[in-house]
Amino acid sequence: MNVIAIATGAGALALAPSIIPPTPVPSAGRDQAATRISPGEIVAAAPASEWVAIAPEDMLVMTLAPAADGAVREVVIQLMPAPYGAGWVENIRTLARARWYDGIAVTRVQDNYVVQWGDPNAEDEAGAKPLPDGLRTTKEADYVVPFGQTRPRQRVVIMSDPYSDMAFYEAGWPLATKDGSAWPVHCYGMVGVGRGMSPDTGSGAELYTVIGHAPRHLDRNIAVVGRVIEGIEHLSSLPRGTGPLGFYEDPAQNVPIASIRIASDLPESERPRFEYLSTEGPAFDRYVEARTSRRDPFFITPARGIDVCNAPVPVRRVSER
Amino acid sequence: MNVIAIATGAGALALAPSIIPPTPVPSAGRDQAATRISPGEIVAAAPASEWVAIAPEDMLVMTLAPAADGAVREVVIQLMPAPYGAGWVENIRTLARARWYDGIAVTRVQDNYVVQWGDPNAEDEAGAKPLPDGLRTTKEADYVVPFGQTRPRQRVVIMSDPYSDMAFYEAGWPLATKDGSAWPVHCYGMVGVGRGMSPDTGSGAELYTVIGHAPRHLDRNIAVVGRVIEGIEHLSSLPRGTGPLGFYEDPAQNVPIASIRIASDLPESERPRFEYLSTEGPAFDRYVEARTSRRDPFFITPARGIDVCNAPVPVRRVSER
Repeated sequence: MNVIAIATGAGALALAPSIIPPTPVPSAGRDQAATRISPGEIVAAAPASEWVAIAPEDMLVMTLAPAADGAVREVVIQLMPAPYGAGWVENIRTLARARWYDGIAVTRVQDNYVVQWGDPNAEDEAGAKPLPDGLRTTKEADYVVPFGQTRPRQRVVIMSDPYSDMAFYEAGWPLATKDGSAWPVHCYGMVGVGRGMSPDTGSGAELYTVIGHAPRHLDRNIAVVGRVIEGIEHLSSLPRGTGPLGFYEDPAQNVPIASIRIASDLPESERPRFEYLSTEGPAFDRYVEARTSRRDPFFITPARGIDVCNAPVPVRRVSER
Repeated sequence: MNVIAIATGAGALALAPSIIPPTPVPSAGRDQAATRISPGEIVAAAPASEWVAIAPEDMLVMTLAPAADGAVREVVIQLMPAPYGAGWVENIRTLARARWYDGIAVTRVQDNYVVQWGDPNAEDEAGAKPLPDGLRTTKEADYVVPFGQTRPRQRVVIMSDPYSDMAFYEAGWPLATKDGSAWPVHCYGMVGVGRGMSPDTGSGAELYTVIGHAPRHLDRNIAVVGRVIEGIEHLSSLPRGTGPLGFYEDPAQNVPIASIRIASDLPESERPRFEYLSTEGPAFDRYVEARTSRRDPFFITPARGIDVCNAPVPVRRVSER
């Protein structure tokens, strides 16, 4: 069974005390439904002090070529904070600043798996787009960081993660740990770095996002560098590719990417503003607990269990003032 | 950590002996890559005797209105075998034979959640399509079956399921058990029965399929009655609805369904033929083991863990002879 515990400090995590016990099923049944609060209501009621602004330098704005009907298609990606995936994230900033991404394309859409974008001519030595100078070299060891390197603080812990000893959240991100290492996990919407066969770990020039059930077997095998926080529907609803691995067979099917910009490089009036619900505050604890045992009116039998990808960290756009 | 065990007979499940231990990481490293077999290769090599034909009366062929470019959009759904969801499955056959589904529409597409179809005028008493006679009444208790009612046989068991005491497979379906009950689980592509607030458990006139991360919190709260076995991309790539819960705001956005037929009611030449890999045979055991600890060349660090929705039961179309 799944246990949600709150531990304070990295040392306490090993003990994983069950301070928040599983919520008992309300014995009065559904007639008390109106008093039962949903995860969404908990998030909506969270005080402003528990929302954390996402720094403009940690956001990418990816603009696809307009849709057939002329509609603007904009995807906002939040980049991982160091130390996770730091080398690749730095490369992504370098590529964006060099405007290297402008004119590349979505080339692969595999159902229940990933949407991938990059240079459509990457495999063609003569036609491949030259990479800018200054890219860092990354290595497999960078897929994880020492668990002790993560900052000790209060956090929600999910003990029953089939892929690790424990899943947890830190500074707004879902993570997992085992054997002294910690790593970001492949949930829906996470963004990772495409790579060839090892020892190539990918430069950041080819990226993908998850559009299906969490492919957690990719954890520690590919770098997770961010997540889509708005506009994923522009990617997840694209036609599936019919070639091997979901690649588009006809280059005419590729979806061109007009530009990818770091939000802090945009004029201030054009910068999107987002914030996430602190994963170190009490509202997030209540949110995960409510998702673990749904008690809002629709639900009859609370699961009393959760997996880390079924309790995504709430993120919201801040409307202009 | 996740343990894969094989147990024989329902009684043995309580013990859950770890007969197949987690696969050791090959110490020779990736230079032996060519000798490492992938889950797909295991499935491709499974003998014909381990593939089970899906009965034509257990398949629905759903034909959407042609796409804008005239392309045919056909979705094949396999219905759950009794005792799971039996009342709803019988209703679905009744509705299909009455041609009640013909002319209804996809009305809801919520990203990372579900695609739903039904009578667009269901809420409008005057305009709602009358249901045929002979539909069975279902109740919440039907969401589960007694665990002992499942047939005892050899099977793969996934001990570390956050939502149950144990996940397992039976007769080609992913299931979970807890407190003496067993139930089918909400994985990607599973088909369920829309319902209102209880005690309405849904008739089968409104159905949905999962197009995102497994919403396992719906287990035991809505009936699972089948899964999409071909053509899910015609549903998962539809434009997302912009209304509450992903409903289309403008009825013109609804995607009409031309017909839903039981395959056995089609002329024999038009019947699709599918088979699934027996979940009671050795190839399926090896497949789940390989997905638990990927050793094919791309992988560096085997997860040594799996969740039931990340090891879908292989299903294949049988080409015409």
